[in-house]
Amino acid sequence: MSKELKVELIIIGDEILNGRVSDLNGPFLAQTLFKKGLLLNNITICGDSYKEIENTINHSINRSQLIFITGGLGPTEDDKTKQCLAKIFNKKLIASEAGEKVTKENYSRYGKEWILGQNNYNFIPEDFVPQQNFNGLAPGLIYTIKEKGKVQKLLIAPGVPREFQIMLEKVFLPELINEKICPDLAKKQVVIKTQGIPEEQIFTEAYPSLWNDFSVYGKVSSLPQISGVNIIVSLFDDIHYENALKAMQALVAETQLNEHVWQYGDLSLPELIVKKCTEKSITFSFSESCTGGLSSSKITNVPGSSSVFEGGFITYSNNLKTKYLNVKDETLKAYGAVSEQTALEMAEGTLKSLNTDIAISWSGIAGPGGGTLERPIGTLALGWACKNGISGSNIQQSNGTRFQLKNRFSEIGLRKLLSIIEVI
Amino acid sequence: MSKELKVELIIIGDEILNGRVSDLNGPFLAQTLFKKGLLLNNITICGDSYKEIENTINHSINRSQLIFITGGLGPTEDDKTKQCLAKIFNKKLIASEAGEKVTKENYSRYGKEWILGQNNYNFIPEDFVPQQNFNGLAPGLIYTIKEKGKVQKLLIAPGVPREFQIMLEKVFLPELINEKICPDLAKKQVVIKTQGIPEEQIFTEAYPSLWNDFSVYGKVSSLPQISGVNIIVSLFDDIHYENALKAMQALVAETQLNEHVWQYGDLSLPELIVKKCTEKSITFSFSESCTGGLSSSKITNVPGSSSVFEGGFITYSNNLKTKYLNVKDETLKAYGAVSEQTALEMAEGTLKSLNTDIAISWSGIAGPGGGTLERPIGTLALGWACKNGISGSNIQQSNGTRFQLKNRFSEIGLRKLLSIIEVI
Repeated sequence: MSKELKVELIIIGDEILNGRVSDLNGPFLAQTLFKKGLLLNNITICGDSYKEIENTINHSINRSQLIFITGGLGPTEDDKTKQCLAKIFNKKLIASEAGEKVTKENYSRYGKEWILGQNNYNFIPEDFVPQQNFNGLAPGLIYTIKEKGKVQKLLIAPGVPREFQIMLEKVFLPELINEKICPDLAKKQVVIKTQGIPEEQIFTEAYPSLWNDFSVYGKVSSLPQISGVNIIVSLFDDIHYENALKAMQALVAETQLNEHVWQYGDLSLPELIVKKCTEKSITFSFSESCTGGLSSSKITNVPGSSSVFEGGFITYSNNLKTKYLNVKDETLKAYGAVSEQTALEMAEGTLKSLNTDIAISWSGIAGPGGGTLERPIGTLALGWACKNGISGSNIQQSNGTRFQLKNRFSEIGLRKLLSIIEVI
Repeated sequence: MSKELKVELIIIGDEILNGRVSDLNGPFLAQTLFKKGLLLNNITICGDSYKEIENTINHSINRSQLIFITGGLGPTEDDKTKQCLAKIFNKKLIASEAGEKVTKENYSRYGKEWILGQNNYNFIPEDFVPQQNFNGLAPGLIYTIKEKGKVQKLLIAPGVPREFQIMLEKVFLPELINEKICPDLAKKQVVIKTQGIPEEQIFTEAYPSLWNDFSVYGKVSSLPQISGVNIIVSLFDDIHYENALKAMQALVAETQLNEHVWQYGDLSLPELIVKKCTEKSITFSFSESCTGGLSSSKITNVPGSSSVFEGGFITYSNNLKTKYLNVKDETLKAYGAVSEQTALEMAEGTLKSLNTDIAISWSGIAGPGGGTLERPIGTLALGWACKNGISGSNIQQSNGTRFQLKNRFSEIGLRKLLSIIEVI
């Protein structure tokens, strides 16, 4: 069924169209459905006006069988979704007992009492079924249309991401699985993560027949990201994952692409670092100047990181570099804070102070101030030190805004960490 | 003109519909246009198939005058935008001299040479004008339709955010301003940021007539965010900003909402902290356990933060807490790492070690492991210490995933920091 099924998401809210908030529901739904073997065909974001909402929903019901709608169920005057749905489907908006029951349950979960009629939460378009909201107060809705053997479903949730997400997991997906609209299993895919090579070069020089070769196993996509290009092969149903993976690895091994692959798998860089360190019982620590805690934060986003990441220093000032990392005053004076010499001493000092197997240090200029002719914005001095004696540092240039540079600097250091972990 | 102008964005790419990447172009365009007084009417995300792209663009040209399109201009086989545009507008896809020139310039910016015909970058639909890409290789496109006194414009860019963003700023906006389609000035709005009160309570209890009162000055929106609810009033053209702000402040001051407002303005919490500290010459430092560098990273995202943020410690292990923050062994033993006592000693130790005016400390349990009956996941012990002698700590509970909890914990601590800065 899933191959025929057209699925889409409508997001209602001026706040997204004026850029006030970034939509998080689209990516979450897309990822969740993809794992279930369903592909979103469209995401449409429209404003809070009756006309826009009506036009958008009307356009969707003419082309899709499964329509997710988020937003416009709240208590304020710009929440118009229920009125629009009632009008489109020619239903009355009625005080519903089921709506009353669900709303009371939503309130009581927060230890609150709901007063009959409050926020009109019990008013539901006829034939729509109100749904529990485990992270909020406004009920969700499900509406099923069965006509001429064709089933269409609307799944309507509040726009607040935590409310939509839990409603998707606890209410909508069980409904879809229950009605056999989506299978209860994960989609298989081979993910090949590369670095240090532009997308174009992969397909023209490094491995020109990649697309053709891999299309035998599934649908190929190429996804350039800040950190490198990911090649994704969503395997056809009759393909065995392990066999396909091995075949692709063998193919890549024969090409120039091979040296650029840093992972066959779908972990993020911090996840892979924590996984490999856990397997090898390796500990590490950081001292961050220009990245200002970002690298540590990325690592500590990974559950279980506390067993391999000891901690670190945020040495934004030179004072801290000398006091805690034993960077010599003369080094700072002779070479400056952003230098291979300082980065190396930072890493060595961190290793010694925190007594870990590996230490990484970042010192650089993220801008917009602080750049000089010799050390322009985008300069990163990266240092590393290991208990086994390997240590070193280098200096390199990147481009971008302050925010982008912090991310790139962090990425460069984490990649260096991974490369050390792999040979240690 | 801007009131009549329908503007929309079409994003082309399977990678967004299968959840591989989150779209960043929508928010960026929305924010950029909003500041110019233009409102995006729709964002549509569609897949890489010819049929989807055609349907989507055809639907848009029937309703909008300004159509931004991103994605599908790259070198791989899933890049089909140019072919679709040629078909829709009944144009030939031709080897264009202008396309050749632009492509050569794009390549030369990277010190590369482009070989004639490579990637078909010089093939452009007739009457479409190729545009420079200052952050990439594929040219953008502009197509202007003038019919019966009506002007329609398509502005087409690669999907990679850094390429789209610079093309928007350096190519598309100047074109729109030049043709007087959008004015070259910022839209005025009053932003009121609240905390510690749910959206519903604002409009039912704290200030029930807010919506009506503020609608006199402009279009009111209410935006719940993790950190609190923001009320935005986009002022009508004839309203004076300072007068409207003063009037709204006076209105709010009479209501229960007043105590929940933490800013009349549009700075982020870290930006406001850096701004106030700079004005008052206050320095601060952090020790982060459960937040793992996130708070430091948020602060160091702000340009100029280095003059007020000294740095800090990421004391993921108890060992570091005693070694660098002088947390007593007996405190850790008697009360545990996540306790008011430990958090207080962490803050006091940080203040002393780093010699700043204020120090904030975080110790908590972000999960998914590490929770106990007494200290469940979501527990945060927050400490603060100031040179003037004010110090303290508290303990509180939040809900969420590890990622969400790190964010909430960080937010709670930064809010405490702001409140100290305001009274110091």
